[in-house]
Amino acid sequence: MPSPARQDFLPFALSLAAAARAETLPRWRTGCASEDKGGTADYDPVTDADREGERAMRALIEAEFPDHGISGEEFPDRPASGPWCWSLDPVDGTRSFTCGLPNWVTLIALLHEGRPVLGVIDAPALDELYTGFGEAAVLIAAGAASPARVSDCRSLVDARFSTTDPYLFSGTELDAFQAVRSRVRTMRYGHDGYGYARVAAGSLDLVIENSLKPHDYNALIPVVRAAGGVIGDWRGGEDLSAGKIIAAATPQLFEAAVSCMENAA
Amino acid sequence: MPSPARQDFLPFALSLAAAARAETLPRWRTGCASEDKGGTADYDPVTDADREGERAMRALIEAEFPDHGISGEEFPDRPASGPWCWSLDPVDGTRSFTCGLPNWVTLIALLHEGRPVLGVIDAPALDELYTGFGEAAVLIAAGAASPARVSDCRSLVDARFSTTDPYLFSGTELDAFQAVRSRVRTMRYGHDGYGYARVAAGSLDLVIENSLKPHDYNALIPVVRAAGGVIGDWRGGEDLSAGKIIAAATPQLFEAAVSCMENAA
Repeated sequence: MPSPARQDFLPFALSLAAAARAETLPRWRTGCASEDKGGTADYDPVTDADREGERAMRALIEAEFPDHGISGEEFPDRPASGPWCWSLDPVDGTRSFTCGLPNWVTLIALLHEGRPVLGVIDAPALDELYTGFGEAAVLIAAGAASPARVSDCRSLVDARFSTTDPYLFSGTELDAFQAVRSRVRTMRYGHDGYGYARVAAGSLDLVIENSLKPHDYNALIPVVRAAGGVIGDWRGGEDLSAGKIIAAATPQLFEAAVSCMENAA
Repeated sequence: MPSPARQDFLPFALSLAAAARAETLPRWRTGCASEDKGGTADYDPVTDADREGERAMRALIEAEFPDHGISGEEFPDRPASGPWCWSLDPVDGTRSFTCGLPNWVTLIALLHEGRPVLGVIDAPALDELYTGFGEAAVLIAAGAASPARVSDCRSLVDARFSTTDPYLFSGTELDAFQAVRSRVRTMRYGHDGYGYARVAAGSLDLVIENSLKPHDYNALIPVVRAAGGVIGDWRGGEDLSAGKIIAAATPQLFEAAVSCMENAA
């Protein structure tokens, strides 16, 4: 029997996103206002959303694909007994979640022999889901699907550039970031994994970050690549294991960012 | 005949927001992706959204209240022949708008003898409208209204703090900002006028900014105050004309921010 292809897992991946949404979205913006704080002292909506979101996704995977591995943020890894493994981050952008801001996402990746081949970036509070596998990237907004495609931005001077928090950079990394920042057309902050979704959809052109963990970046790779974009490391390669990521709309823009950062450091 | 009270203008202010939405929202996320760039060379969706949004609001005011003044971002001021004046910013957060990000807002304020008495912060892409007048603040999300109320956060160590862009600060202003940043629980960036709306709704506790113009801050004042919050200047007073704004959930937090900034500068 042939092994299933990555696109065969798409409906299942969407069911994982839906299961996580059912746990995360009802907990968002609860416990924010003063009148809601009277409950138990250890009430923490984002921790609950993280844990219950991941638990719901794990239960579906364990029931449907008991041979698949699972690596998530909240629970110990479950080793695979075959080539397939899921990487899960129920709430990426926990600070936005706790601040009642809508740009947090759920990240889901399917890996085949260690390489991410299908990604989902779901933004429950915005009702936008971005998915990519092979050369097909799709945005499902308010239930309506449309193709996702990167912009044709090729140079820093035209680029709409985003990073989550400039204070995550220091030393030569800060110099490298600031060199790019000083050259781009527009700079935005604060979007965590959602920034990569908007690169895939063509309204941002460039995201540069550090400090990302595998469950932060695994899902981004298939989405950005399937939309026609480039995602790699700060040296221009494809080794993301140090957590230093560049996502760009075009190879030219990716190379321009790498070159600008190398010259600054 | 008695002069109308500020709340009598609420339905009209909501109609202004709806008229602006009809011009701004259809232009958002157009012209983003490469395949949409083939049009006329001067196509600029945010400029069109700004201009047409303000034009639509002005037309309603001129027809309904020809004696009211109008001060907007896009067209020359129209002087009042009475005590009432409208302050309009059709797209606050133009960088977010051009980057296809959802956290841009339309700002509408009604001023009586120069003092803002009714404010609207409308977030069309999020379908959230925040309004405040007197002691009543309301959030209308997806058509459903609920009271808006600040949090009870009283100290920097517990505060969820937001500013749009830390690179807008330099010199002693940067020192003052960084002193606050280093003390708070959570820091977020990138939300322009939407940050103040989330202070009013109790999920952010503190916003500090500089460089704001009257059409940027007039609408924020009644919304934050009606929700129970404090909005003032960096010296702890109420003179916003220098564009240096602090919005805080409680008087204690406001004073803590002022004191922290004064000690740092």
